[in-house]
Amino acid sequence: MAEMAQRRIRATVEYLGTRYFGFQLQGEAPTIELVIRRAIADLERSGGICLHPKQVRLTAASRTDAGVHARGQVICFSYHGRVPAERIPYALNSRLPEDISVVSAEEADWSFHPRYDARSKRYSYSIFNRRIPSPLKLEQALWVPRDLDAGAMAAAASLFLGTHDFAAFMASGSSVVNTVRTVFRSEVTHTGPEIEYTVEADGFLYNMVRIMAGTLIEVGKGKYGNERVLKALRSRDRKMAGPTARPCGLCLEEVRY
Amino acid sequence: MAEMAQRRIRATVEYLGTRYFGFQLQGEAPTIELVIRRAIADLERSGGICLHPKQVRLTAASRTDAGVHARGQVICFSYHGRVPAERIPYALNSRLPEDISVVSAEEADWSFHPRYDARSKRYSYSIFNRRIPSPLKLEQALWVPRDLDAGAMAAAASLFLGTHDFAAFMASGSSVVNTVRTVFRSEVTHTGPEIEYTVEADGFLYNMVRIMAGTLIEVGKGKYGNERVLKALRSRDRKMAGPTARPCGLCLEEVRY
Repeated sequence: MAEMAQRRIRATVEYLGTRYFGFQLQGEAPTIELVIRRAIADLERSGGICLHPKQVRLTAASRTDAGVHARGQVICFSYHGRVPAERIPYALNSRLPEDISVVSAEEADWSFHPRYDARSKRYSYSIFNRRIPSPLKLEQALWVPRDLDAGAMAAAASLFLGTHDFAAFMASGSSVVNTVRTVFRSEVTHTGPEIEYTVEADGFLYNMVRIMAGTLIEVGKGKYGNERVLKALRSRDRKMAGPTARPCGLCLEEVRY
Repeated sequence: MAEMAQRRIRATVEYLGTRYFGFQLQGEAPTIELVIRRAIADLERSGGICLHPKQVRLTAASRTDAGVHARGQVICFSYHGRVPAERIPYALNSRLPEDISVVSAEEADWSFHPRYDARSKRYSYSIFNRRIPSPLKLEQALWVPRDLDAGAMAAAASLFLGTHDFAAFMASGSSVVNTVRTVFRSEVTHTGPEIEYTVEADGFLYNMVRIMAGTLIEVGKGKYGNERVLKALRSRDRKMAGPTARPCGLCLEEVRY
């Protein structure tokens, strides 16, 4: 078979992570990446190209964990077929389950890399704060029954702004060397029982947003004061920060380039 | 067995209607009422009272359809046990699935009836308006791919305000005699692709909110103008109003007494 011309496609993907073992491929486990690779391989097949899903060349901006959602995951993949970029969302969505949608697609430069070229990523972490859990917020918020002080959480959130060594806010066992990151936005808003934490940074360490959210929840409960948060930052010690908040509240909102 | 003293409990219930055949009991079909009756029967059993779920005396403010959600359904039931009213939500929730929650409970007067005594009910109807559907809004919004004019919808929504004969906005085949209702609030708001219709009235005919929402969607598409909406109201003819919008977007928000 003659070599076919390849195109490089950049796409924005939205998904409900509840049913998946996270984004990244893990053999045959139900991961978002596997399902997307299968859809791309099926699209290639309709154009006469036979590829195994694992032969699809695909990279993503973020490896979201099991149960984490995304409104603005960015992926890049090679594609041999002729479907115009603006039709690719429809061509892929007809091959994807309802809980994963390709929202937009465009031609990308071969030099573009969705992870290395990202200037910033924005995540949201949603909390539902009421004695009784909400059936309408089961999959997309963390239920915290104990009363949280959202004002104290907002004040503590601002302590994360700027450039800091976030080593204390990284899952222990991670092997990243440079743990310095710059946080551009770190805000807590609330409407009735719904509390939302929004954080944007030039990059995130493993579990960083969930540990930040877990720390802010301790502040909201009155267990930590601002000094403790600052001390945790200075300590570079994972044990000084709060627990890792559950994945269901986390959503990758946007990646900027 | 000696007659046990009965108490009358009024409770507010929140549920995700997706998995259910609606609120109202239909034999052994999975309805919200059946699941709640089973939980109450189980609670009675823990107090030594043996009741079949169908023997529980229970009434509700609204018979929501299959797939319709509620944040503020109000129910009333008889209860023989000693659990204090403020603990009843916890006692029932431990016996209910995650998609149904009793949010609050209080002692009620024997004369209180959740349906007949309601002064008004408020519903919301949520629309997700984007070419590509949203995995994060699958169960709690209607996906409308075609561009809607939310401003035109808001203007048309205000035509429902006040006292009108809503016969055209009732599922055909309904046998209600008095089809006059008073609408206190009828508003369309939107934030990005999310459009929400809020309507409060002294009562609703069968499928009334879904037909109102379906009519407003026709307005948003440019198919109906305000004249058509007024003409539909005057006609008392179901065929003059828009289609019945799907249940997934509908939520019973609040019942006022």
